Amino acid sequence: MAKQADLEKLTTLTRPHRDMINVMPLQTGSILTEAARRVLVEFGDGYSICDFCQGRLVDIANPPVRQFVNEMLPEFLGADVATLTYGARDGVFMVMHSLTKPGDVVVVDGNRHYSTAVAAERAGTELVVVPNSGYPEYTVDAEGFADVLRERRASLVILTYPDGRFGNLVDAERVGEIAQTVGVPYLVNGAYSVGRMPVHMKELSADFLVGSGHKSMASAGPSGVLGMRDKWQEVVLRRSALHKTKEIECLGCTVRGVTLATLMASFPTVVERVTHWEEQVSKAQWFSEAMESLGFTQLGEKPHRHDIMVFETPALFEISQRVRERGFYLYKEMESRGIWGLKPGQTKALEMSTFAATQEQLTQVVDAFQSILEKYR
Amino acid sequence: MAKQADLEKLTTLTRPHRDMINVMPLQTGSILTEAARRVLVEFGDGYSICDFCQGRLVDIANPPVRQFVNEMLPEFLGADVATLTYGARDGVFMVMHSLTKPGDVVVVDGNRHYSTAVAAERAGTELVVVPNSGYPEYTVDAEGFADVLRERRASLVILTYPDGRFGNLVDAERVGEIAQTVGVPYLVNGAYSVGRMPVHMKELSADFLVGSGHKSMASAGPSGVLGMRDKWQEVVLRRSALHKTKEIECLGCTVRGVTLATLMASFPTVVERVTHWEEQVSKAQWFSEAMESLGFTQLGEKPHRHDIMVFETPALFEISQRVRERGFYLYKEMESRGIWGLKPGQTKALEMSTFAATQEQLTQVVDAFQSILEKYR
Repeated sequence: MAKQADLEKLTTLTRPHRDMINVMPLQTGSILTEAARRVLVEFGDGYSICDFCQGRLVDIANPPVRQFVNEMLPEFLGADVATLTYGARDGVFMVMHSLTKPGDVVVVDGNRHYSTAVAAERAGTELVVVPNSGYPEYTVDAEGFADVLRERRASLVILTYPDGRFGNLVDAERVGEIAQTVGVPYLVNGAYSVGRMPVHMKELSADFLVGSGHKSMASAGPSGVLGMRDKWQEVVLRRSALHKTKEIECLGCTVRGVTLATLMASFPTVVERVTHWEEQVSKAQWFSEAMESLGFTQLGEKPHRHDIMVFETPALFEISQRVRERGFYLYKEMESRGIWGLKPGQTKALEMSTFAATQEQLTQVVDAFQSILEKYR
Repeated sequence: MAKQADLEKLTTLTRPHRDMINVMPLQTGSILTEAARRVLVEFGDGYSICDFCQGRLVDIANPPVRQFVNEMLPEFLGADVATLTYGARDGVFMVMHSLTKPGDVVVVDGNRHYSTAVAAERAGTELVVVPNSGYPEYTVDAEGFADVLRERRASLVILTYPDGRFGNLVDAERVGEIAQTVGVPYLVNGAYSVGRMPVHMKELSADFLVGSGHKSMASAGPSGVLGMRDKWQEVVLRRSALHKTKEIECLGCTVRGVTLATLMASFPTVVERVTHWEEQVSKAQWFSEAMESLGFTQLGEKPHRHDIMVFETPALFEISQRVRERGFYLYKEMESRGIWGLKPGQTKALEMSTFAATQEQLTQVVDAFQSILEKYR
């Protein structure tokens, strides 16, 4: 068997950056609430959520999964019906696999997450892309969907709202109108919006809305949510012919354990925090301006309307060309200043999120960049 | 929005039966180790395992996911290659979806888990069943696979090893020989064996072996493992044409968070505990005999070779017919005696597992049944 020393290392895994300022886009929306940290311990064991399951995860009364899934989530998502998933990508695939046949066309925005392309390959569908505007804003015009849908007969429209690189917010309501006009079902991928900002599926004229517990709902992962219109229930949540209580598309059940417990425990905080979205946007805009005043360029929409953004940072790249650690100097300099979340080695373009940081902490981040620029001048 | 009182309940979720003797088949193999409880807290936040991800979950060097997945798991499973999944059912579907086309035949044992049937419905395949022997042993004869495979051209053979109701262990090695003879790939569903008892994929002449973190590997859920022969790597782990580092069948990545951390932290204990399987079998056989001496009948194989078993308990059912709480009296009586894991309301047949209980605790369980029988005589 594997060396004992290697095995023992597995028992003492730690994370290096507790209590640091976190600006990693993947992580800022899923830092657990105190309530979630408590249930984490309580529901750590496998199948912990299933103590009183009578055959359907979404119908468990204690803990109140049924109320959470059947009442609270639909209301929160602006949907008729909701269910649980392993994450946004899994919700996207569930819908795609239920609504399309191999060879069908799925129309998607040019900033889609990689997993949407992979889901299409898994389902055997053809992705037709509404391109973005390119450098420097990379915006996607909602009217572009009308152009594509005029030319191609599609089975599904997917909009990434916002995308995870630029943090651009397409006019999702307009895309919904367009999809509705041509009668094509419309899915909004809210991995980076549901749980951060107000998103109401029906107000966007959407048929489906997916969210991610471990991206934006202060939850452990893997976990996600999927809201839909009533009429899709019999398609996406169709039951097994042999096992009448079990849904086919999720193989019976999904988040059977601790990650659902954290999703539920954080939910009241998440419901509350989306009402403060304007403050998040203000922070993001302040940060964007402060970074630009250092000579960096924010790509994507301006003024920016989301906490996720990417900066071109040629001055930081230039430094990497003449220091011993090459690109890694930046990660180390930031880490030594208590800032976590830049990709080790990256200096040309930095993806960041202002969601978890306070205004004071963002000031520290800007000051850190400034002091690094000065140090290597 | 939902009532504030209901929302607040979500923040204080608890489990009622900490420190009780646990005999629930779903739960006895996934009680966390102390190491797993520690990493649970450390890796609670979403995407926590991905701190240093460079695009592939299974290649993360810190924590040592790469070493765990590419070295330790294949060795443990007796496989050439291993990967991570959300659970056994998800591993079964990944293989089925990769290897079959709609309309293909999949041959399976008559004691298969419901999720195998649901996976077949999702993949559009036809399940052909090798029946069990019926009451009272419900055994499946390995030779039955030869009979079915002679008549039907199959794309995949799946064996549930053991099944989750009777805890019967089919001659998996013989099924492997039969499948190999006719050249049909063979998957062993080890949801209740991998992590409890020694299972070596190649010794069973299997092509695939799935395991469940939250059923049998002392891990939080959802989490699972999938081992395979080298030649299936390019089929099941095929990469995206557009995103060359991403695997299609798992949509890029799976257990991106705390459940992988617990799977890894418990792994050294799991590796060690499977070497004590004979002690588990002895406990199970002692328990079976003690229960039968109370007048109950153990269904399934005898002498029993697994900790999961089911008892016919007509005397307990008879009591339920004349007490106010009906079937629920039994659950309450057992709970008041510190024993957890009987399904509330069930009295006719009881599914139990002896895996987590010590010999002393199992004596307590038998004594509890005896005192209940006497109380209601």
